[in-house]
Amino acid sequence: MPRYALLLEYDGTNFCGWQRQGDLPSVQKLLEEAAAPLNQGVLPTATASGRTDAGVHAEGAVADIELALDLPPARVRDAINFRTQPQPVVVLAAARVAPDWSARFDCLGRGYRYRILNRPARPALEATKLWHVKRRLDAAAMHAAAQLLLGRHDFSAYRAAACQAKSPVRTLDRLDVARLGEEVHIIAEARSFLHHQVRNLVGTLVEVGQGRRPVTWPRQVLEGLDRGKAGQTAPPDGLVFRFARYEPAPAWG
Amino acid sequence: MPRYALLLEYDGTNFCGWQRQGDLPSVQKLLEEAAAPLNQGVLPTATASGRTDAGVHAEGAVADIELALDLPPARVRDAINFRTQPQPVVVLAAARVAPDWSARFDCLGRGYRYRILNRPARPALEATKLWHVKRRLDAAAMHAAAQLLLGRHDFSAYRAAACQAKSPVRTLDRLDVARLGEEVHIIAEARSFLHHQVRNLVGTLVEVGQGRRPVTWPRQVLEGLDRGKAGQTAPPDGLVFRFARYEPAPAWG
Repeated sequence: MPRYALLLEYDGTNFCGWQRQGDLPSVQKLLEEAAAPLNQGVLPTATASGRTDAGVHAEGAVADIELALDLPPARVRDAINFRTQPQPVVVLAAARVAPDWSARFDCLGRGYRYRILNRPARPALEATKLWHVKRRLDAAAMHAAAQLLLGRHDFSAYRAAACQAKSPVRTLDRLDVARLGEEVHIIAEARSFLHHQVRNLVGTLVEVGQGRRPVTWPRQVLEGLDRGKAGQTAPPDGLVFRFARYEPAPAWG
Repeated sequence: MPRYALLLEYDGTNFCGWQRQGDLPSVQKLLEEAAAPLNQGVLPTATASGRTDAGVHAEGAVADIELALDLPPARVRDAINFRTQPQPVVVLAAARVAPDWSARFDCLGRGYRYRILNRPARPALEATKLWHVKRRLDAAAMHAAAQLLLGRHDFSAYRAAACQAKSPVRTLDRLDVARLGEEVHIIAEARSFLHHQVRNLVGTLVEVGQGRRPVTWPRQVLEGLDRGKAGQTAPPDGLVFRFARYEPAPAWG
């Protein structure tokens, strides 16, 4: 059967996350049901580059799916988008891929952005896309603290209790913090991440940004390997899955 | 009584617009009710720099309001924001102003931004903040057409039938069109605008961007003074009120 890669944009606010959880509204369930008419009415299985949590968004997630119909990628995109209406899940582009191609296992790099709104007033615009932190953040101190976390480490201290990964060792390639007006953005890139790793890193860096902990503290937390010592898990709203990288990249149609 | 200027951010999606319309949810009604506890429980009257339509947003609208209590501006901001929860209307800042200061009549310039999402897939993120136009737009042609509309003119051709302004003459100071990736942004600035003027200009420029009309057409429509000849009124979703300008500016606290 023809195999496709799908480039996805979704608003995670009202979903239980990417992954199917029974009858709860998941991105996976919505996508598979929308694609079933292209698969002789049989529910196909979509596997994603990353299983985002409830409330986490995506502007460039990737999934693979096998469909009975052999169609031009633009037709696959339009047919699925017609059926996901009016839900906020769309296929930006589709591509034909090899029968053994995997959005999850062939992924060489994943990128996230986390947005903090740092001002007295809560957000009225994009309220579900931002973490509101009233107290002024020192983004430069957060960035300095973040640079001490780069490289290959045991990230047990930043891992959710529910994390199912076999190893807590990950290589953090990029963790940049920068102020953009009233917002503070955190950009995180790695081959793969542990469950809640980005949100736990953000919650810990914010302690530094608020001046409650020194720049060296997130590194100390890392070395302590104890999740109980890190900062809070930042809320899901501010997190967006930006990209999944493949070599070669799918030939998006 | 102390008079305040309020700098406002709101998401217009679920409001009938700025202005009170009986019991319908309006931004004005929500704001006045939230401010009443600062006015001995009596409903104050808020007057805005611009009466935005249903579905139109604001990131920097200004309103004036008189309140019985003499409070530091930051207290006014926080007290109103506490009471507008969880609705998407917030005071970004407040300022004390003179008893005769008017957000509407002292305003020397108003700025709007209109965002078009120009790609095959509809928006999943910010779906209520964008007009989705699938067909590829030539932003450079739209910009060239827009420059022919600058200056002082009778804008009857771009005015809503319901417009209550005494004169259809306005001076358009800026109408820039630029592509930003998958989006096309239109920036409009003038001392004041007619009802639906920005949305009618956008709907007309899009005809040029799609190649259905020549660059000179919006200017011909202007000179014809006939609303029936212009393009469609662009949907409200893409429009945001950016700023109102005063000299001197209120001393935002």
